Amino acid sequence: MAELKASIAGGSGYAGGELLRLLLFHPRIEINQVTSEQFAGKFVYRVHPNLRKVTQLKFSRLAELEPCDVLFLSLPHGTSMKNIEMYKKMAPKIIDLSGDFRLKNPADYEKWYNCRHPAPEMLEKFVYGIPELHRAEMKHASFISSAGCNATVTILALYPFFKNNLVDAARTVVEVKVGSSEGGNKANEGSHHPERSGCVRSYKSTGHRHIAEMLQELSFSNPIQIHFSATAIDIIRGTLATSHVFLKENLAEKDIWKLFRDFYGKEPFIRIVKDREGIYRYPEPKLLAGTNYCDIGFESDPHSNRLVVISAIDNLMKGAAGQALQALNIMHGFDETTGLDFPGLHPV
Amino acid sequence: MAELKASIAGGSGYAGGELLRLLLFHPRIEINQVTSEQFAGKFVYRVHPNLRKVTQLKFSRLAELEPCDVLFLSLPHGTSMKNIEMYKKMAPKIIDLSGDFRLKNPADYEKWYNCRHPAPEMLEKFVYGIPELHRAEMKHASFISSAGCNATVTILALYPFFKNNLVDAARTVVEVKVGSSEGGNKANEGSHHPERSGCVRSYKSTGHRHIAEMLQELSFSNPIQIHFSATAIDIIRGTLATSHVFLKENLAEKDIWKLFRDFYGKEPFIRIVKDREGIYRYPEPKLLAGTNYCDIGFESDPHSNRLVVISAIDNLMKGAAGQALQALNIMHGFDETTGLDFPGLHPV
Amino acid sequence: MAELKASIAGGSGYAGGELLRLLLFHPRIEINQVTSEQFAGKFVYRVHPNLRKVTQLKFSRLAELEPCDVLFLSLPHGTSMKNIEMYKKMAPKIIDLSGDFRLKNPADYEKWYNCRHPAPEMLEKFVYGIPELHRAEMKHASFISSAGCNATVTILALYPFFKNNLVDAARTVVEVKVGSSEGGNKANEGSHHPERSGCVRSYKSTGHRHIAEMLQELSFSNPIQIHFSATAIDIIRGTLATSHVFLKENLAEKDIWKLFRDFYGKEPFIRIVKDREGIYRYPEPKLLAGTNYCDIGFESDPHSNRLVVISAIDNLMKGAAGQALQALNIMHGFDETTGLDFPGLHPV
Amino acid sequence: MAELKASIAGGSGYAGGELLRLLLFHPRIEINQVTSEQFAGKFVYRVHPNLRKVTQLKFSRLAELEPCDVLFLSLPHGTSMKNIEMYKKMAPKIIDLSGDFRLKNPADYEKWYNCRHPAPEMLEKFVYGIPELHRAEMKHASFISSAGCNATVTILALYPFFKNNLVDAARTVVEVKVGSSEGGNKANEGSHHPERSGCVRSYKSTGHRHIAEMLQELSFSNPIQIHFSATAIDIIRGTLATSHVFLKENLAEKDIWKLFRDFYGKEPFIRIVKDREGIYRYPEPKLLAGTNYCDIGFESDPHSNRLVVISAIDNLMKGAAGQALQALNIMHGFDETTGLDFPGLHPV
Repeated sequence: MAELKASIAGGSGYAGGELLRLLLFHPRIEINQVTSEQFAGKFVYRVHPNLRKVTQLKFSRLAELEPCDVLFLSLPHGTSMKNIEMYKKMAPKIIDLSGDFRLKNPADYEKWYNCRHPAPEMLEKFVYGIPELHRAEMKHASFISSAGCNATVTILALYPFFKNNLVDAARTVVEVKVGSSEGGNKANEGSHHPERSGCVRSYKSTGHRHIAEMLQELSFSNPIQIHFSATAIDIIRGTLATSHVFLKENLAEKDIWKLFRDFYGKEPFIRIVKDREGIYRYPEPKLLAGTNYCDIGFESDPHSNRLVVISAIDNLMKGAAGQALQALNIMHGFDETTGLDFPGLHPV
Repeated sequence: MAELKASIAGGSGYAGGELLRLLLFHPRIEINQVTSEQFAGKFVYRVHPNLRKVTQLKFSRLAELEPCDVLFLSLPHGTSMKNIEMYKKMAPKIIDLSGDFRLKNPADYEKWYNCRHPAPEMLEKFVYGIPELHRAEMKHASFISSAGCNATVTILALYPFFKNNLVDAARTVVEVKVGSSEGGNKANEGSHHPERSGCVRSYKSTGHRHIAEMLQELSFSNPIQIHFSATAIDIIRGTLATSHVFLKENLAEKDIWKLFRDFYGKEPFIRIVKDREGIYRYPEPKLLAGTNYCDIGFESDPHSNRLVVISAIDNLMKGAAGQALQALNIMHGFDETTGLDFPGLHPV
Repeated sequence: MAELKASIAGGSGYAGGELLRLLLFHPRIEINQVTSEQFAGKFVYRVHPNLRKVTQLKFSRLAELEPCDVLFLSLPHGTSMKNIEMYKKMAPKIIDLSGDFRLKNPADYEKWYNCRHPAPEMLEKFVYGIPELHRAEMKHASFISSAGCNATVTILALYPFFKNNLVDAARTVVEVKVGSSEGGNKANEGSHHPERSGCVRSYKSTGHRHIAEMLQELSFSNPIQIHFSATAIDIIRGTLATSHVFLKENLAEKDIWKLFRDFYGKEPFIRIVKDREGIYRYPEPKLLAGTNYCDIGFESDPHSNRLVVISAIDNLMKGAAGQALQALNIMHGFDETTGLDFPGLHPV
Repeated sequence: MAELKASIAGGSGYAGGELLRLLLFHPRIEINQVTSEQFAGKFVYRVHPNLRKVTQLKFSRLAELEPCDVLFLSLPHGTSMKNIEMYKKMAPKIIDLSGDFRLKNPADYEKWYNCRHPAPEMLEKFVYGIPELHRAEMKHASFISSAGCNATVTILALYPFFKNNLVDAARTVVEVKVGSSEGGNKANEGSHHPERSGCVRSYKSTGHRHIAEMLQELSFSNPIQIHFSATAIDIIRGTLATSHVFLKENLAEKDIWKLFRDFYGKEPFIRIVKDREGIYRYPEPKLLAGTNYCDIGFESDPHSNRLVVISAIDNLMKGAAGQALQALNIMHGFDETTGLDFPGLHPV
């Protein structure tokens, strides 16, 4: 039944493993190859132990990569930008999960990544990978660049407000709480369990690279600012963004409900979560583990024009592999939710 | 495509919610009703927040229960034994998740549950719910009683050894580490987060009711003993059993591999997990969250005739709802793995 | 050697227990009585299990309270305001840990607590309990009202900036991450371990009562605003505040260091934590468990006039019992650090 | 007031840091030097962040070690055995925290450590470091070897039963649950937070080196066996041992209480914890973080002659640094509890 041969370049990391899990159960896709230099020749389940008995696939080397229908690049940042010409020869469609093709303006790579982009002519050819913003372009795209996880959870929360020019463009403050899987699968001093467990660590209070994506996607007429900080907490998966926006004009709660419905009412993976009571009345990332949902809620400050927008995702799913597969589904005309119907667990 | 109407009596608990999640995605089943006295009339996703946007189903009252093809009983212990005659009229097939019909001998209810069983004539009619031990009986069963979670994880580890009479029948010691979901969804002093988080609590060192099931299922010729203790640790889902058995005659590692292959080689949900290296070389319950697997490993003591058998399950899946659905699949002639193919997440 | 008889009204809660732990080891204090209606007659170590073998003290009833030198009130909010006249007869010095006497303006109780204060004439007599702001008044005080935990961690971070009028008075955004002990020792649906563990819960995005204290203590000439939100995470003790302030004029890093040194250079319990490298280069609440420290760090945004100030405390210590004992030490002329020298653990 | 100059060789690890914390507050001891090759010249608080503002001490090199009154060796296993002659010249009293001098029989090093001991003549000169068993010898000792953490928690639980010959010598099974700090402070694949957090990992089911200590200390007349396994769980500090012993003759609960009172009734750091009710009715390691207690409880199996003995310690305290300081206090005639009076926190 499979009609699409897909390969993953760089499949030993957390996002690559998640992509592999998804593709193995996708009814229209057959996995051709998964590469890893370190683990070439070994069963993928040695690295992704959840896949034991699920697949007998082994890792290949990058040099062994064969032509395929769609190629996912799940390589360390800075790798795919250098070799994009080579990858283009391998597949007519490429989805890159790194930051290498997210920004349209080459100057932004110098500002935020401290590097000169080696293939600036490719930047415009990549569609920025949040389907809710760029679905139409994706349908005819050859190249898609998946968005950063923190950028995804923030942009989806703020998009209706910036697009409709409803908020003070310079005042938005965003604080995300992130899990340890965001740091990747390499052990280091900071990820050592006795140090990392129980921590509430201000790992990036200013200057986070994902801000560049937020500015790109949320700027319409005026220049804007996003005052962003990230705090690492004792979870593995999941990101919660607490965004403080300042409304130009008063909006009643029902107006905000309407705004979200207008933007996201038909979106299969966005849920507006705002109940009067209950412990899960606002978005909660732990419920999203393994799912492709972005849950969004909000609360108006009765003492000021502040609106707090709360959004949550699984950083490896809607913030990486799930978003990439959603994009693939769109790009190939499949039902957008194919292979992405896991609802998440409770309790968890 | 659905051909079977299923209802759940008692669907607001953790096992009921998990069953609901599974049934919603089962291609051959349609959910007719889910009952909850406390939440009757409310959307099920108010109680099971992972099902938001997945279903618009609402809870019914028990008194509103309609006839259906298969009825799951997910009620507090002691409830289904009292009303089994009423439930029998509702459906030709019943799967009970409580302890009410697990033991064959009415006297065991007096010994382990401190109660006189009100329907002792039904005990022999219920098939004990571990498919790996009772698959043949399940195919023609009308009544199945799902096994206790601690019993399941222990019995599956020990069965080959007791069945083949390989171990000292009186010496086995089993220590299980369990998560907080095993205690159900009602808050109490012991489940209060500041007290329960980080705990290593000896909640049942002796006299656990699930021992009765182990004795029943593992006794063949001789009388046996299972010296069982349970310790609650800071996880939500998952059970790990560390079983110490003492071999009557020396068995080489390859003999034990062969033993497990003989018993479980064709089982879809049992994996023998024993690698030479790697951090997941033995079973690890966190990898099983949401899956129906029971992973089993072992290690021989070089200094004695002790063999340590390590087994892991998700207590709400293979230890409750997943086991129940696997039994339903067998009972109705469906592929045994239908609706149970979620492989679990990593990292998690 | 003890020269001061102290009693605790309401000693069964978390703050009361912490106070008890501290007082038991204070060389100048003897505990006279600790009350609890629920546990009257029982050993205090039944409720505070860390005190087993440390003390044979038993709980008294409130009605049995005897005169003493200093009385701590660690009662539910709303209780001490009603009975303050009675407590005044019991001891010449009172330290209240509740919110009942924190605000100077009776109207603020109507605005933030939805109640009419029954003893408004007492409000001015209570010194607000943060020693770093009110040490001089404390020396001669009879009544001290310990500050709220979230207020303490926020005010200490922001005080130098507001006092010296360095920041835009209306723009400050504060996001605190809090542990489960902040919710007290009563189990409820939201504190149930399977629901609370692993959570990142927006429990108070707007309207938190502690904001009233922040406004009171940080307002000098102009009206100010504090845009505050609180998120509950999976820790038990500890609070981390991430405060975003917007500088009126550019301040170099060394200016900010100087500012903090000017304000806090001689403070025994404030540490400026800002290193160039290392995993603990910013404040981390887990290192503060059991200590009376408030750690403060900061980071300048290179892309705007934003300064992120990061502060951490143990909510039960510097945010409650430790702060109260520090105040007592000042009030009685003891060395301010007496009984508060525990440095905290690592790893932890 | 200090009358003893102490140094720590190897002070950058977790046990060394804990020792440092204790010694800094010990009224009779002055710290002379703390060594670390990696961090020589740096403030100790860079490595032990809880000591920031507590001490301005810097690390020295081992080669800079000066003579002192007592020298603690907190070096990697295998190091102190090689250089013991050199250390003996530095101080008249030595306390070694490694495994290098714990076993009396040189052959045991070949069996359990796979190494030939280079200084076998020193083995008899070291007193095994559990004060409750060897207090008399410690008073006149020059060399003390602190016991392994798992050995300590197991031996203290089992000692009364083996000493009085009350249990079947070959049947005891012990399962300990351990935290991540036991693995030391070096990051590795297995300690990486996304893999280690939430785990229940059978890291040493057989062959643990600490068994050698248990056999040494618990063997009296007959040969004995200890069937030991260790499971790593998601805590940082703390060890809980669940020991299953099989009584030769029936012992009533009051007999066991009496037994423990006879052995431990006057011990300052042993508490018998066994209540009829309450969530902390058995030992719980989290309450012991930072303390020197070993808590011991027990439960008789009504269905067999099994007795479950439950014991808990903080592996870095009673299992390492605290035990070492207790030994020092005895060796120098100080009050045994000096510097060890921290009662632990609750909640925690």
